[in-house]
Amino acid sequence: MRSREVKNSTPVEDIKKLRLITAIKTPYLPDGRFDLEAFDGLIHMQIKNGVEGVIVGGTTGEGQLMSWDEHIMLIGHTVNCFGGEIKVIGNTGSNSTREAIHATEQGFAVGMHAALHINPYYGKTSLDGLVVHFQSVLSMGPCVIYNVPARTGQDIPPRVIEELLGSENFAGVKECVGNARIADYSQLGIAVWSGNDDQCHDARWDFGACGVISVASNLIPGLMHDLIFDGRNRSLNQKLQPLIEWLFSEPNPIALNTALAQLGLIRPGFRLPYVPLNIEKRQQFVRIVAEVGRQHFVGNDEVRVLEDSDFLLLGRY
Amino acid sequence: MRSREVKNSTPVEDIKKLRLITAIKTPYLPDGRFDLEAFDGLIHMQIKNGVEGVIVGGTTGEGQLMSWDEHIMLIGHTVNCFGGEIKVIGNTGSNSTREAIHATEQGFAVGMHAALHINPYYGKTSLDGLVVHFQSVLSMGPCVIYNVPARTGQDIPPRVIEELLGSENFAGVKECVGNARIADYSQLGIAVWSGNDDQCHDARWDFGACGVISVASNLIPGLMHDLIFDGRNRSLNQKLQPLIEWLFSEPNPIALNTALAQLGLIRPGFRLPYVPLNIEKRQQFVRIVAEVGRQHFVGNDEVRVLEDSDFLLLGRY
Amino acid sequence: MRSREVKNSTPVEDIKKLRLITAIKTPYLPDGRFDLEAFDGLIHMQIKNGVEGVIVGGTTGEGQLMSWDEHIMLIGHTVNCFGGEIKVIGNTGSNSTREAIHATEQGFAVGMHAALHINPYYGKTSLDGLVVHFQSVLSMGPCVIYNVPARTGQDIPPRVIEELLGSENFAGVKECVGNARIADYSQLGIAVWSGNDDQCHDARWDFGACGVISVASNLIPGLMHDLIFDGRNRSLNQKLQPLIEWLFSEPNPIALNTALAQLGLIRPGFRLPYVPLNIEKRQQFVRIVAEVGRQHFVGNDEVRVLEDSDFLLLGRY
Amino acid sequence: MRSREVKNSTPVEDIKKLRLITAIKTPYLPDGRFDLEAFDGLIHMQIKNGVEGVIVGGTTGEGQLMSWDEHIMLIGHTVNCFGGEIKVIGNTGSNSTREAIHATEQGFAVGMHAALHINPYYGKTSLDGLVVHFQSVLSMGPCVIYNVPARTGQDIPPRVIEELLGSENFAGVKECVGNARIADYSQLGIAVWSGNDDQCHDARWDFGACGVISVASNLIPGLMHDLIFDGRNRSLNQKLQPLIEWLFSEPNPIALNTALAQLGLIRPGFRLPYVPLNIEKRQQFVRIVAEVGRQHFVGNDEVRVLEDSDFLLLGRY
Repeated sequence: MRSREVKNSTPVEDIKKLRLITAIKTPYLPDGRFDLEAFDGLIHMQIKNGVEGVIVGGTTGEGQLMSWDEHIMLIGHTVNCFGGEIKVIGNTGSNSTREAIHATEQGFAVGMHAALHINPYYGKTSLDGLVVHFQSVLSMGPCVIYNVPARTGQDIPPRVIEELLGSENFAGVKECVGNARIADYSQLGIAVWSGNDDQCHDARWDFGACGVISVASNLIPGLMHDLIFDGRNRSLNQKLQPLIEWLFSEPNPIALNTALAQLGLIRPGFRLPYVPLNIEKRQQFVRIVAEVGRQHFVGNDEVRVLEDSDFLLLGRY
Repeated sequence: MRSREVKNSTPVEDIKKLRLITAIKTPYLPDGRFDLEAFDGLIHMQIKNGVEGVIVGGTTGEGQLMSWDEHIMLIGHTVNCFGGEIKVIGNTGSNSTREAIHATEQGFAVGMHAALHINPYYGKTSLDGLVVHFQSVLSMGPCVIYNVPARTGQDIPPRVIEELLGSENFAGVKECVGNARIADYSQLGIAVWSGNDDQCHDARWDFGACGVISVASNLIPGLMHDLIFDGRNRSLNQKLQPLIEWLFSEPNPIALNTALAQLGLIRPGFRLPYVPLNIEKRQQFVRIVAEVGRQHFVGNDEVRVLEDSDFLLLGRY
Repeated sequence: MRSREVKNSTPVEDIKKLRLITAIKTPYLPDGRFDLEAFDGLIHMQIKNGVEGVIVGGTTGEGQLMSWDEHIMLIGHTVNCFGGEIKVIGNTGSNSTREAIHATEQGFAVGMHAALHINPYYGKTSLDGLVVHFQSVLSMGPCVIYNVPARTGQDIPPRVIEELLGSENFAGVKECVGNARIADYSQLGIAVWSGNDDQCHDARWDFGACGVISVASNLIPGLMHDLIFDGRNRSLNQKLQPLIEWLFSEPNPIALNTALAQLGLIRPGFRLPYVPLNIEKRQQFVRIVAEVGRQHFVGNDEVRVLEDSDFLLLGRY
Repeated sequence: MRSREVKNSTPVEDIKKLRLITAIKTPYLPDGRFDLEAFDGLIHMQIKNGVEGVIVGGTTGEGQLMSWDEHIMLIGHTVNCFGGEIKVIGNTGSNSTREAIHATEQGFAVGMHAALHINPYYGKTSLDGLVVHFQSVLSMGPCVIYNVPARTGQDIPPRVIEELLGSENFAGVKECVGNARIADYSQLGIAVWSGNDDQCHDARWDFGACGVISVASNLIPGLMHDLIFDGRNRSLNQKLQPLIEWLFSEPNPIALNTALAQLGLIRPGFRLPYVPLNIEKRQQFVRIVAEVGRQHFVGNDEVRVLEDSDFLLLGRY
């Protein structure tokens, strides 16, 4: 189903060069559909602050709560409106190989620049199965492999990655198990992005990571740009730790959703099973914004503490 | 779910100005998936020959045999690769208002320039129901209403069209009931495209049609361009009638599919319930090509008569 | 994907023996989901009044407004709760052969007794294509072919039906083109049900139809039973004509939906593109009920005229 | 969308009484569709050996590799054919609350006796989110909560379970974190099934589990029945450990799929990302069968070692 049009083909080297990629949040309307106007706004802020790529429909973007047609539509929308200014990496992975194949074909057909592929979470498989799974999609276009055992229940060990290196579409690894693993990959010449905001400064400057796929950059894209592009900066890194700790105090993107709503950039609707942070943590966020500096965060409105009654929980949509 | 990005908004006047629009064929791989490489080739020939717009997933493009995710993907693909050179009109209509709403939102989100909307075929509804149905999608972007009672079992009468004129997104009508109706609409200042290749010359030059939404232009885009742009040309129109008659000798797109396969531009796979024309008609096509002139048809290979065994019938895909 | 369990196999002769089959209405909750409690109530009334079979998700049941998962679920639900008391015929036809194959496999897998198959409406195909389409599903289980050119835009001519007779699963034809055609089939020994309530008495007693697939029997199952089982009864037939005329004064099931809401048996929600009958016709229904006799209609509440504001129009659900 | 028919309502006490439940394997045809004939065969063997319930589309049954329409169809099929002889528990859980709601409604509509609900794997959520997620489905019918952190990346702690006890539909917990947790629940009067075959004997006889939801019982239903119903039997338990260890030597259901194919009961087709065990382990299985005794395993054919070339890997289906 491949198209050979130039607009459907991105050199894998262009993906490997990316240093700051945001796992972008998906905002919702009160009835649970996508709020594309808010989404476009978030993307503009990313571009303006030097972010080079976005993951569309990652776990942060709640791809796991989308139907596939929504998911592919959002990738196509992002490519059409912003594909000239920012790289669009679609999270077309799945624990079902059939779904991963289908979504990846569709994602490349609508012009995504690269795919993010997770190992089969929940259902899991053998190491041999992992290799076959990833090889099923690698022929289609540039591909970043995503390792996050805390979500999938299963580590992708280096021997699996090594079996994929032969593919010309293998772009690199988003790695969450820590900087030792990142160093190992880096020494093998593999492009690797830290998937942990709290470790990404050290990953970049001490362990050879080419950059970060970040959640925090949804909120502070400019500061994350400084952290990744402007050389070692331990004081900035230190300064950001309380924010990052807060962001991951509950499974992501719970805190991110709460933060963007309190910054006035998205409507306060949560697709279940996500629910807002409690009031104490919502108050804490306002203090953290003050400490980091409101001007470093996206948006222009005053940050405020939302009440429980401000939030919508969406079960049917 | 609207996006306000410039790339997601086409002035309705730009749609009204289109004169030659092709209801483009969708080609398939042997396993029934889209053959995007062949599709891209067809679109390039359209652009090269001056065609100004394409209907993606119309009845000719077999939208009725697509899943919605395939359909929206194909719209997004066409926009991404060719949207700067040709207008992309997605057939996001349905006999289910819910599906029409959902598909039209998605189509505009991935950048289509306009939507084509059919009245609810098969299930049908009252005239009041027709109005509500069309109004449910008119707010989303430029919209062409499609009237083809021979397919839907129900005429859209002028009184329904008149109720839609107030919408700024109403672009016009693709009308198949004949040139008298076209003249009526034309006199009201309504943009109207003939949906009948055999009548389109007269529609354009004698009855006020702004152009045609054509099937024949899949095969002879240059000649159709001459017919629609270069003034009255009864001899050309006459010369094309045998081809057009052949094209509609069975429900479209049966003959078109057969023709493109015999011209070597698509693989000879038919998604059921379509089956190829019989051998006599396949031989007749070769004679017609010779009479009209091979050089006027798309492609460069010699036209040939395919055997029954060359065709694949696809029931599961 | 066949199962050979006894519960998944109904002798085709048991289908041919059915005389009174209701194309059952699907009722909705205010949010557009199925109202299964109301549905169960309707089925109970059918069983109690001697109706022998139901078409689930026919055009009357608005199968064209269902997702396939809803559709198969409703078939499975009906089989599970009522399959011992009434034959369940799933309308698993489609204008897409792929969808017809998939839905028919699933329908038989959840235990439906027979399938109803329409010719490909809207997209249409050649006569050869019709034969391939129907043969694609005939191997799966008992099958009734449905001919209604006023909806499909294309007649299924006898030569197509004759090509299907060789299949042991061919159960018969639901025929809407009139009693002359019914007589022809009947003389060939083909089981044929009238699809027109206004003609069904004559079809049964004068033209050889084995019975009717009825819309009116949603409202007056007992009287329809009398009409079909108890021999010629021209006065009863005459008495019912005003009701039947009213029922088809707009495309079915618009009037039926309105009637059942006014009888208090379903909630007054319409999935678009259907909208209620206007107030004059709603008042007329109350008069017709009085003339025929309230006791002959389903339900026990007093029939009433609903106001415009009582109705919900459902576009997203 | 509830139905109040008796056939759609199972007392939660009937679920709590079940002791031996099999997480049944789903067999496939060579093109990847369900092999219902083989499935029916597996269920018959379960019934014949005294198994009281089946989980349909669990992780063992590869629900994660099904489309939802396949999944609900399989539940409906099982209820229709076997619902009088064995309890049917549909795994209608999901990491998306919307999908869990939709599937659970549909599953109960087609007659399943209970639902199995997992916590949101991969996407995860907060403890507050877990409670809202489970409560979203608990109103619909009897519900077993499934805790398997090795797959989900997140433990369901007792405080979450305790918040669900108030629901009359709460049937109990399938618990995989070990027998200490089982003992705790048991002492609170909560019905709890071991989800670990290797621990289930002790869970049942020493820690208060009411029984097991078993994978091994796909192969040796009679021995598992002995183990769970006939009192302490450490020698039998010991005898089965090598088989159980083999069964879980790779992520389940890889070994189970391999075993059933080698026993001749299913076709050797694997939906990816699952691939067969390697040849050494396939040979080991034959030895294990000999040691336990072929007569204790399902099927009558001689167990054999399949070759690599015997297996089909299915990526598109």
